[in-house]
Amino acid sequence: MINPGKKLQREAKRQVGKIKKLIKPKTKKAGLAPGTLVYTGEKSEQPIKISVIDYLGENFEEKEVKSVEETFSLQKTDSKSWINIDGIHHIETIEKIGDRFDIHPLVLEDILHTTQRPKLEDYEKHIFIVLRMFIYNEELHEIKNEQVSLILGKHYLLTFQEDIGDVFDSVRERLRKGGPKIRNGGVDYLAYALMDAIVDSYFHILEKVGEDIEEIEDRLVVNPEKDDLKKVHRLRRDLILLRKSVWPLREVLSQMQRNEAGLINKSTEIYLRDVYDHTIQVIDTIESYRDMVVGMLDVYLSSLSNKMNEVMKVLTIIATVFIPLTFFAGVYGMNFENFPELHWKWMYPWGFWIFTLIAIGLMLWLFKRKKWM
Amino acid sequence: MINPGKKLQREAKRQVGKIKKLIKPKTKKAGLAPGTLVYTGEKSEQPIKISVIDYLGENFEEKEVKSVEETFSLQKTDSKSWINIDGIHHIETIEKIGDRFDIHPLVLEDILHTTQRPKLEDYEKHIFIVLRMFIYNEELHEIKNEQVSLILGKHYLLTFQEDIGDVFDSVRERLRKGGPKIRNGGVDYLAYALMDAIVDSYFHILEKVGEDIEEIEDRLVVNPEKDDLKKVHRLRRDLILLRKSVWPLREVLSQMQRNEAGLINKSTEIYLRDVYDHTIQVIDTIESYRDMVVGMLDVYLSSLSNKMNEVMKVLTIIATVFIPLTFFAGVYGMNFENFPELHWKWMYPWGFWIFTLIAIGLMLWLFKRKKWM
Amino acid sequence: MINPGKKLQREAKRQVGKIKKLIKPKTKKAGLAPGTLVYTGEKSEQPIKISVIDYLGENFEEKEVKSVEETFSLQKTDSKSWINIDGIHHIETIEKIGDRFDIHPLVLEDILHTTQRPKLEDYEKHIFIVLRMFIYNEELHEIKNEQVSLILGKHYLLTFQEDIGDVFDSVRERLRKGGPKIRNGGVDYLAYALMDAIVDSYFHILEKVGEDIEEIEDRLVVNPEKDDLKKVHRLRRDLILLRKSVWPLREVLSQMQRNEAGLINKSTEIYLRDVYDHTIQVIDTIESYRDMVVGMLDVYLSSLSNKMNEVMKVLTIIATVFIPLTFFAGVYGMNFENFPELHWKWMYPWGFWIFTLIAIGLMLWLFKRKKWM
Amino acid sequence: MINPGKKLQREAKRQVGKIKKLIKPKTKKAGLAPGTLVYTGEKSEQPIKISVIDYLGENFEEKEVKSVEETFSLQKTDSKSWINIDGIHHIETIEKIGDRFDIHPLVLEDILHTTQRPKLEDYEKHIFIVLRMFIYNEELHEIKNEQVSLILGKHYLLTFQEDIGDVFDSVRERLRKGGPKIRNGGVDYLAYALMDAIVDSYFHILEKVGEDIEEIEDRLVVNPEKDDLKKVHRLRRDLILLRKSVWPLREVLSQMQRNEAGLINKSTEIYLRDVYDHTIQVIDTIESYRDMVVGMLDVYLSSLSNKMNEVMKVLTIIATVFIPLTFFAGVYGMNFENFPELHWKWMYPWGFWIFTLIAIGLMLWLFKRKKWM
Amino acid sequence: MINPGKKLQREAKRQVGKIKKLIKPKTKKAGLAPGTLVYTGEKSEQPIKISVIDYLGENFEEKEVKSVEETFSLQKTDSKSWINIDGIHHIETIEKIGDRFDIHPLVLEDILHTTQRPKLEDYEKHIFIVLRMFIYNEELHEIKNEQVSLILGKHYLLTFQEDIGDVFDSVRERLRKGGPKIRNGGVDYLAYALMDAIVDSYFHILEKVGEDIEEIEDRLVVNPEKDDLKKVHRLRRDLILLRKSVWPLREVLSQMQRNEAGLINKSTEIYLRDVYDHTIQVIDTIESYRDMVVGMLDVYLSSLSNKMNEVMKVLTIIATVFIPLTFFAGVYGMNFENFPELHWKWMYPWGFWIFTLIAIGLMLWLFKRKKWM
Repeated sequence: MINPGKKLQREAKRQVGKIKKLIKPKTKKAGLAPGTLVYTGEKSEQPIKISVIDYLGENFEEKEVKSVEETFSLQKTDSKSWINIDGIHHIETIEKIGDRFDIHPLVLEDILHTTQRPKLEDYEKHIFIVLRMFIYNEELHEIKNEQVSLILGKHYLLTFQEDIGDVFDSVRERLRKGGPKIRNGGVDYLAYALMDAIVDSYFHILEKVGEDIEEIEDRLVVNPEKDDLKKVHRLRRDLILLRKSVWPLREVLSQMQRNEAGLINKSTEIYLRDVYDHTIQVIDTIESYRDMVVGMLDVYLSSLSNKMNEVMKVLTIIATVFIPLTFFAGVYGMNFENFPELHWKWMYPWGFWIFTLIAIGLMLWLFKRKKWM
Repeated sequence: MINPGKKLQREAKRQVGKIKKLIKPKTKKAGLAPGTLVYTGEKSEQPIKISVIDYLGENFEEKEVKSVEETFSLQKTDSKSWINIDGIHHIETIEKIGDRFDIHPLVLEDILHTTQRPKLEDYEKHIFIVLRMFIYNEELHEIKNEQVSLILGKHYLLTFQEDIGDVFDSVRERLRKGGPKIRNGGVDYLAYALMDAIVDSYFHILEKVGEDIEEIEDRLVVNPEKDDLKKVHRLRRDLILLRKSVWPLREVLSQMQRNEAGLINKSTEIYLRDVYDHTIQVIDTIESYRDMVVGMLDVYLSSLSNKMNEVMKVLTIIATVFIPLTFFAGVYGMNFENFPELHWKWMYPWGFWIFTLIAIGLMLWLFKRKKWM
Repeated sequence: MINPGKKLQREAKRQVGKIKKLIKPKTKKAGLAPGTLVYTGEKSEQPIKISVIDYLGENFEEKEVKSVEETFSLQKTDSKSWINIDGIHHIETIEKIGDRFDIHPLVLEDILHTTQRPKLEDYEKHIFIVLRMFIYNEELHEIKNEQVSLILGKHYLLTFQEDIGDVFDSVRERLRKGGPKIRNGGVDYLAYALMDAIVDSYFHILEKVGEDIEEIEDRLVVNPEKDDLKKVHRLRRDLILLRKSVWPLREVLSQMQRNEAGLINKSTEIYLRDVYDHTIQVIDTIESYRDMVVGMLDVYLSSLSNKMNEVMKVLTIIATVFIPLTFFAGVYGMNFENFPELHWKWMYPWGFWIFTLIAIGLMLWLFKRKKWM
Repeated sequence: MINPGKKLQREAKRQVGKIKKLIKPKTKKAGLAPGTLVYTGEKSEQPIKISVIDYLGENFEEKEVKSVEETFSLQKTDSKSWINIDGIHHIETIEKIGDRFDIHPLVLEDILHTTQRPKLEDYEKHIFIVLRMFIYNEELHEIKNEQVSLILGKHYLLTFQEDIGDVFDSVRERLRKGGPKIRNGGVDYLAYALMDAIVDSYFHILEKVGEDIEEIEDRLVVNPEKDDLKKVHRLRRDLILLRKSVWPLREVLSQMQRNEAGLINKSTEIYLRDVYDHTIQVIDTIESYRDMVVGMLDVYLSSLSNKMNEVMKVLTIIATVFIPLTFFAGVYGMNFENFPELHWKWMYPWGFWIFTLIAIGLMLWLFKRKKWM
Repeated sequence: MINPGKKLQREAKRQVGKIKKLIKPKTKKAGLAPGTLVYTGEKSEQPIKISVIDYLGENFEEKEVKSVEETFSLQKTDSKSWINIDGIHHIETIEKIGDRFDIHPLVLEDILHTTQRPKLEDYEKHIFIVLRMFIYNEELHEIKNEQVSLILGKHYLLTFQEDIGDVFDSVRERLRKGGPKIRNGGVDYLAYALMDAIVDSYFHILEKVGEDIEEIEDRLVVNPEKDDLKKVHRLRRDLILLRKSVWPLREVLSQMQRNEAGLINKSTEIYLRDVYDHTIQVIDTIESYRDMVVGMLDVYLSSLSNKMNEVMKVLTIIATVFIPLTFFAGVYGMNFENFPELHWKWMYPWGFWIFTLIAIGLMLWLFKRKKWM
């Protein structure tokens, strides 16, 4: 039982380590003018990867470009373009895009500070959306937590991610295969599809958390170990952090549905309502899990008390039975000169042992009656 | 006392096992296009059962049909039709219905993902309502938890259930007997009647939970056992999940009362207000139960402490009485050459025992005064 | 101290037994058509008692009638009539009244299901109000909890109670004596007077609860007993249930003040504001009491820990003093042949006892310094 | 350390005794007609003291009158009059005032029932305000808790207090000295000044509570005593009650600012906003204190557990060291005939003691490693 | 491990000492007329330092002035002036400024009472804003908590600070360097920049708190010490107080965005939204930290119970093994004349020791099975 436990623990540690980032506040920036671009994530050596998907009805083109300038021509065409930037540590690239797409410096700043809570900001020409994406890597048993920023314009959708690798492959596949809804829908529908993929990935994480809860819960009832407390505590913390990531998403989605900027088509609203529903479901589940985890702590504490009670009972039974007997044995070990009992013939073999057995029997009967045994 | 306890526990386990489904998030879907129909419940071999009740004033017809196409003709008539589908694992059937009744793909998707929270969605031609139904099987001591989806149109009401068996028999009976209100009312009244039946079934479940609470509460005060903790914990969890199922229903019902789609008749509103009231009552009761269950955990912990105190007192009394005496017995068992007391004539029979009895008496008096005995 | 404690406990038990009814959900009804009249309270053999008070300025008549038909003539007159029905198990009578006064079947149903939460429903011809009444019987030390239903029309006020006996005697007295406000006011003022009497009775109950809290609180601080925990737990539960009864009353009263049906006179509104204030005061007090009771549980737990600490200290002091000494006594009881100390002349009378006394003194001094004694 | 502790405790007791009144519900009234005047406070032999301050620009008159009739003439003048009544047990006086100033009977009733929560009621001719005043008596270390009722008319301000002695002396002084704002302001400004004085007195009480919290907090961390628990519990209760007194004041002040009756001048509004701010600050502080006090209970419980742990460790160390040794001593005290060790020459002086010392050393080393010592 | 721990503790103490000021209510003022200027902070000997930054497009002037009168001329020019006053204990200076800039006496009072919660008050000619600034002094490991008051007029911005030293150096630097946004923006943009600097400093404090939480959390899981409890308690208290400082800031910022006074330019609103977002992030983080700290207390308590359990097990194992054996040794130390076993030849060397070893072995096996070892 040690091995899988250890593994699980190691795994939990890694998971926590990744989620922790969520609460690290952005401090590198303090003291700079607003709109000054500084990347607050971990420095990466990786080159930026820019991939473009351009589509309009039957036309579909997917390519990877070297420099961001190559994408600028797309802005003028009527076709819908999804420009995805993996890696935001290359500040000049971000600045060039900001310049070209007329993005407010504060928005660029938010894209680079990768500890934002989900939010939506409505600019005239585009909507800026921040989301948090969780990727569960099955091989490494690791959860990666990334900020995804979306700039949704009339004909283009820009997405910024911290690293290569995301939960959008299914969306790309649908685009390639030419799913009618996604091809004919606007970029707002594409944005919806990405958000839907992200919310779906939350369900995946929750399923993992749910499995952990079930596993620990079963153990707590039978035989709680010290490690279980740590795990419960970690679950609690993870749920606090998950909640912090998901809760504001609700507001983001209802803002989108209100659709004040006019960038969301009527037909997409119904789909947004659907993601909204899923988000509520995620929040609901998180809250239920939190309630359960709090309850588990009570169960753990009670189990500890129960165990202590059991230990104490054993001690008390042994002590209560043998301490008085030891006294009697001690009495007959005294060396008084005038000690009549010592000379009675049947005192030892019968008198002493019978008395002892009766005493023991009586005690045990009493303990039984008190339900200690 | 072991047998009924075991039975209760087994029973509780089964119950939990069924309710648990509520929180399992839908993961099979992740990555598919929205509106792709995938059934996420347990695969079933059962054929789909489609039953139709068609009525208008005096006319009443009830039949079971083989294929869904047979029901399509009903749509054109003025009579009111209730088409109930038991079993939703047969995706083509669902798709055909969706096609014919012009149901949005997202709605069909929600019908198939059987872990929805209660909700109401207003489409132009119909209202889509999701409810959760709890069926208590008296024979198996089992609670089944199912998703019931309603499509309420102008002249028709579609209901989708996961399995055969529901809480609607009383409604069917009233239809058959020709109750004036239900016959002359629209399908909106019929929908109300079904919702009322579901809310009534919650009261039934709550009654069972209430009995459990009362039983455990009485035991906790007298002599709490380790199993009781588990039961309290389970009750707590069940209430968390029940609350999750019932809470959103309030919103559903008040949305229906606001009646924006015009599919709800004025005369039905008063009945909806009644179900709304019942729902509030259910929620109220759940909250009170939750408060009580939390209080029970405190009582359990205190009872444990109390028991420990009792055990410790016994140990302390025994040890405090006999340990010093054992020391004195030990003293007179020492082998010093020059040991005057050993040679005093009445030292043993009187001196020693009188001293011992006085010491014991004194101790007991002290314990009495401290209220330890 | 046993006798009064026992009495109090018995009393508390009875009290709880009565209040419990509040949370029993209505299950007898499940499956019936809405508006089907079934009485869910305890079956009673008592006949229904119908009493009528009819008044208009100087005219005042009070009588008890045999059958409900006798009251129907009053409806046509301009005089104000208060028809009070004690006992609602006679369904035909209720149906006749319903018929005559044009009461919606759902209202009749609610009158009979005596576990309603307070509510107000506005029908065109009358307002339907449900209240919960608590009667403290001084002789039996018992609290009765009843549902009171009011139908407030233009010229009549119907009240339905489960049993004979209520808190309205003071109102009747004022009517008889011809208090100017009550005689000249409409039936809405009468309804107010009844509601005021009910809210006043809550203060009475709260006073009893407050006395209990004070009594237990004092005891908890000095010497908590096992029974006190049960009492605290019961207080907590009672407060949960009281809150459930009173909380919705606030909404009822503010609905009445909004006076949408036009059945409430302007001059009565100021009085309703007064009852509303009292209700807020009741709720406030309940919340404060709940906070206090929760705090008491913490105090109880801490007191238990404190007591355990004390017990453990005694054990530890005794054991720590005598166990080492017993070892030394044991040492000199060993039978080694070569045992020089045994032959030293003053070893026993002086050496041994002086060492013992010094050891004890040292230990006690240490315990003193650690503040264990 | 005993003396100051005792004193503090006595003091705390007195304090609690006074605050308790706040939650005693009004029961003397039950059953009487609304507006029947009954004084529910403690019966007092003191005569009523009526003092009048009349001012208009340069004119200022302050006098004490014998009978209430003397004040009636003031009503007709344009000058601003503050009529303060200390002592409300003399019902006729109150009735006469009510008559003359046209005060609604329900208001008079509220003035006499001295357990009202703060509230504001808007009558056409005047505003009725209830406040709670806390007076800390430095000499007696006592907190007095009184209800202050204000009737604010166009030219007059009536104040009713339960006892002689209040926190308004600074306001009187300003009036006498002819502070320009207070002399030229209307009676609404005067009412504001009184309310400001009351809110300021809350800060004073909170400062005392804060000192208590700091004192106990420091002690809890170092060496918690049993009395500290009681004090923490009392602080908690006091804060519950303080909150109950202050919370509704917020609403009162914002109602005044909305100024619907037209009795509040525009220029006073800014001052009301200031008191409002202070009230929020008071509530904030109360909430923070409550959070802290709850945290202190956790600390207390943990400290108890810590202490118990320490005691248990001492017991365990002693027992673990000496019980096995006692066994060995017992072994060599056995009387077997064939007992070779007893005859070995150096067994006792060296063998036995060296073994003993090694055993003790080993044990202590183990405990050290386990960090028990 | 002692040294760094001690240091951390000392550091924490200092931190707490500084933050505590936040909750000290203002009492010096009680009883004075509103608007009477009394400084409630610590009396300082320092002279007041007045620094002026005057700028308009290309023009930039920064100077320090001796008397406040020197700044009055700036009011007439079109250039934007930031007048910063460090030290508010010199009341005449404050009064002169108040006079000249037409500041309401209540505002001046609030500036001097340095325990205000953040707020915004809208006067016709200017907006009054109160903020709380936290400065972390890296050298002294100290947090200073100061009130910063802003008066934002059309062309001027007055800032009042308690002491020399603030978090505004970066803003000054940007002004000097001539950052285009800050130079061309109005004083409202300047006010925004200062608020942004303050909110950024909160992130810095939170980072320190986060480090503390992480450090303690790790230790709690491994080997909790008594001091850790104190630290957890202090963290909890600090978070309560931080929350009290930051929470109202949200309201302040949304009031500014609503921009009713017309003193905030449209172009600044977007920046205010940005600070608003950061404030929400700060509050979010504080809440998550609070949740975590509460969880840590549970972990601490459980760890204590665990440790106690371990101690008890050792005691029980030792006692259970040796107490019965001691009894047997005692038995064979009895001096009965007729004691056959004593004369059996192999009884001692084999019989006794084999029995003893078997008994010990059996016990250990039992403990193993119970998982106590």
